[in-house]
Amino acid sequence: MHKYEEALKILSNISLNFKTERVAVNEAFNRALAEDLYTDFPFPDCRKSAVDGYAIVIWDKMEYTIKGESVPGDLRNADIQAGECIFVMTGGIVPDNTDAVVRVEDVEEENDHILLNRKPEKGVNINLAGEEFSENTLFAEHGKLLDELAFPALCYSGKKEVKVYKKPKIGVFVTGDEILEPGDDYKRGHVFNTNRYILHSLLGHLPADIHYLGRFNDDEEDIAEVLEKSDEYDILVSSGGVSMGKYDFVKKILQEYDYEIIINKTAIKPGSPLMVARNENCTIFGMPGYPAAFATNLILYLLPFVRKSCGIKNFENNIVKGKLRTSMRSRINALYFNRAIVKIEDGEPVAYDPGSQKTSHFLNFFNVNGLVMLDENVGSLEKGSIVNIIPVRGL
Amino acid sequence: MHKYEEALKILSNISLNFKTERVAVNEAFNRALAEDLYTDFPFPDCRKSAVDGYAIVIWDKMEYTIKGESVPGDLRNADIQAGECIFVMTGGIVPDNTDAVVRVEDVEEENDHILLNRKPEKGVNINLAGEEFSENTLFAEHGKLLDELAFPALCYSGKKEVKVYKKPKIGVFVTGDEILEPGDDYKRGHVFNTNRYILHSLLGHLPADIHYLGRFNDDEEDIAEVLEKSDEYDILVSSGGVSMGKYDFVKKILQEYDYEIIINKTAIKPGSPLMVARNENCTIFGMPGYPAAFATNLILYLLPFVRKSCGIKNFENNIVKGKLRTSMRSRINALYFNRAIVKIEDGEPVAYDPGSQKTSHFLNFFNVNGLVMLDENVGSLEKGSIVNIIPVRGL
Repeated sequence: MHKYEEALKILSNISLNFKTERVAVNEAFNRALAEDLYTDFPFPDCRKSAVDGYAIVIWDKMEYTIKGESVPGDLRNADIQAGECIFVMTGGIVPDNTDAVVRVEDVEEENDHILLNRKPEKGVNINLAGEEFSENTLFAEHGKLLDELAFPALCYSGKKEVKVYKKPKIGVFVTGDEILEPGDDYKRGHVFNTNRYILHSLLGHLPADIHYLGRFNDDEEDIAEVLEKSDEYDILVSSGGVSMGKYDFVKKILQEYDYEIIINKTAIKPGSPLMVARNENCTIFGMPGYPAAFATNLILYLLPFVRKSCGIKNFENNIVKGKLRTSMRSRINALYFNRAIVKIEDGEPVAYDPGSQKTSHFLNFFNVNGLVMLDENVGSLEKGSIVNIIPVRGL
Repeated sequence: MHKYEEALKILSNISLNFKTERVAVNEAFNRALAEDLYTDFPFPDCRKSAVDGYAIVIWDKMEYTIKGESVPGDLRNADIQAGECIFVMTGGIVPDNTDAVVRVEDVEEENDHILLNRKPEKGVNINLAGEEFSENTLFAEHGKLLDELAFPALCYSGKKEVKVYKKPKIGVFVTGDEILEPGDDYKRGHVFNTNRYILHSLLGHLPADIHYLGRFNDDEEDIAEVLEKSDEYDILVSSGGVSMGKYDFVKKILQEYDYEIIINKTAIKPGSPLMVARNENCTIFGMPGYPAAFATNLILYLLPFVRKSCGIKNFENNIVKGKLRTSMRSRINALYFNRAIVKIEDGEPVAYDPGSQKTSHFLNFFNVNGLVMLDENVGSLEKGSIVNIIPVRGL
């Protein structure tokens, strides 16, 4: 039996053999970057206009002759002299010999010339080459997930391809005779497969290949069959009675395939019976079968481990402080992770008890989006208490 | 020119014609529920064991004869009498006439009988039928996104199909001659298409169909061509100079297709030139071309509007209070949304300035994951100040 923090440490200390690959930038969304990135050219790469207006070569008069238009594809600098100007759109190239850009709304246009109402300052409305980033400057570090804003920034950088971590391969199977699939007819005493979908939906946004291997029986033959193929996977996840090392035959089969049990139960509720075993190729997560216990172990242990296996540097769960809007029950002598409905109210995270915290209950997870930590020495807490909250998919 | 809150109100007051459809439960991940859901049967649907153990009919002696095993698919209740027991796995059916379940680890097994070390209390280790939810009880309300935990709970409910909102159809196009695509060779003075990817990555997780229509020129002919097809979309998004109603021909074409301009500029920085127009079928978002301005308008206005169009009840952005870990610059008289690197430190949200806040700069969005609000009357703020933060994809 390991304490929560010990178990986290064991998992984060596992050294993994990361593999990388180069992919085209437009295939890199939601992958983890496996190299540091430096700019290939300055940003902007030449002087550009900050406004729609006229790039002018300043002289003493207020009248300037329009000599044309700055065209993005056109690399010639219009050969213009003092008293002349060209039209330029926002972001358009400002010819080297022009001094300033005057906003369209600040000039009077008359046929082939414009009239200013005052003399502009030199350099006004011009973004200088390299002012954002100079060439060969670090802008992205390895281990960063190319997420909703990092990915567009990568597109902006003009890179053609990048080195990313290969997707870890995750196999998942469930055990138990009583499991129906969504769409099956209801049968008394059975339960609908839930853990398969918890895993798919909570890990599905990560750069991992998830394979559902099916339902197996809680017996030696079935478990041997699936463990035989375990070296095809980086991570193998099982749910149900057999997975937690209750039965001697499981330990026997694990030994056969050189697995070492590195975690056997952790001191949390719900879901203390987690078993983690590891050999050279694969890490097995034997998870409890009750969906509430499965989900809790997945959020606390598997999710960070999968993030780490994806090459994501910040793989640990965020923990935020928040206020209980309802009382919450727990018992002394165990670290409870109570399911919670987490909201932002008046700018602060708050948590509500969704009703039942019983391990065998799951339907109230419909509205759950976080876990509240209740330390082993606090027991139940009153409404208004400040607690640590693990948000499941962000606030 | 509308203030930020006014613009939000205009958008949230738009009444939309929602359409719904029924989908199989295993197709419903990440869709928005369009009906309230009630349980079809009690949870659990019969008495079930909370442990692996023996269901017994209590009598005065400590010895019980094993009469068999509870099998999930087997609806017969083993016909057992006082002094008899059957083996039952966690979650297995407990026969009606048994009184308690004794843990496997609390009995001594001897051939065909077990020995207890003390008389158990009646009802122990039995989960009662309906204790979690009784039949026909509301467990899910319409407007809820079937997200990472709601979806597995839906699977658990045993529903076969559910009514969800139809996916809104979003068309997006960019304007400007200087735009390259990722993978294209670098050309001086050009920029790489970024707004297309901002839109795809920030809206891609929502239940919407996104269609990229391509790059168009900033002229009457091209804009007319794309607006002619606008009734095929629920939302049409454009980026670039032409989209913001700068040019008279845009207004003319909008009128032709019965669009009414409901927002023309909002009092925010960066990206005040947002234009929103609406007719019976479609809402057009004409967004500024600079990626930083495009992203800001997308996060503040388009993202909540798309969530709403998807049928998601909680469509507004969360705003959390947090502390500045660096000073931040802004000017009096405009509501600034500064890009920020948001982290959780010691349980509290904190925000760092990523360097430049200039609208024409975007590369530092690589590490940005939130916007900090700097009110029009505060100007720049010192390190340590408490600010409102809009996290982009959760904390």
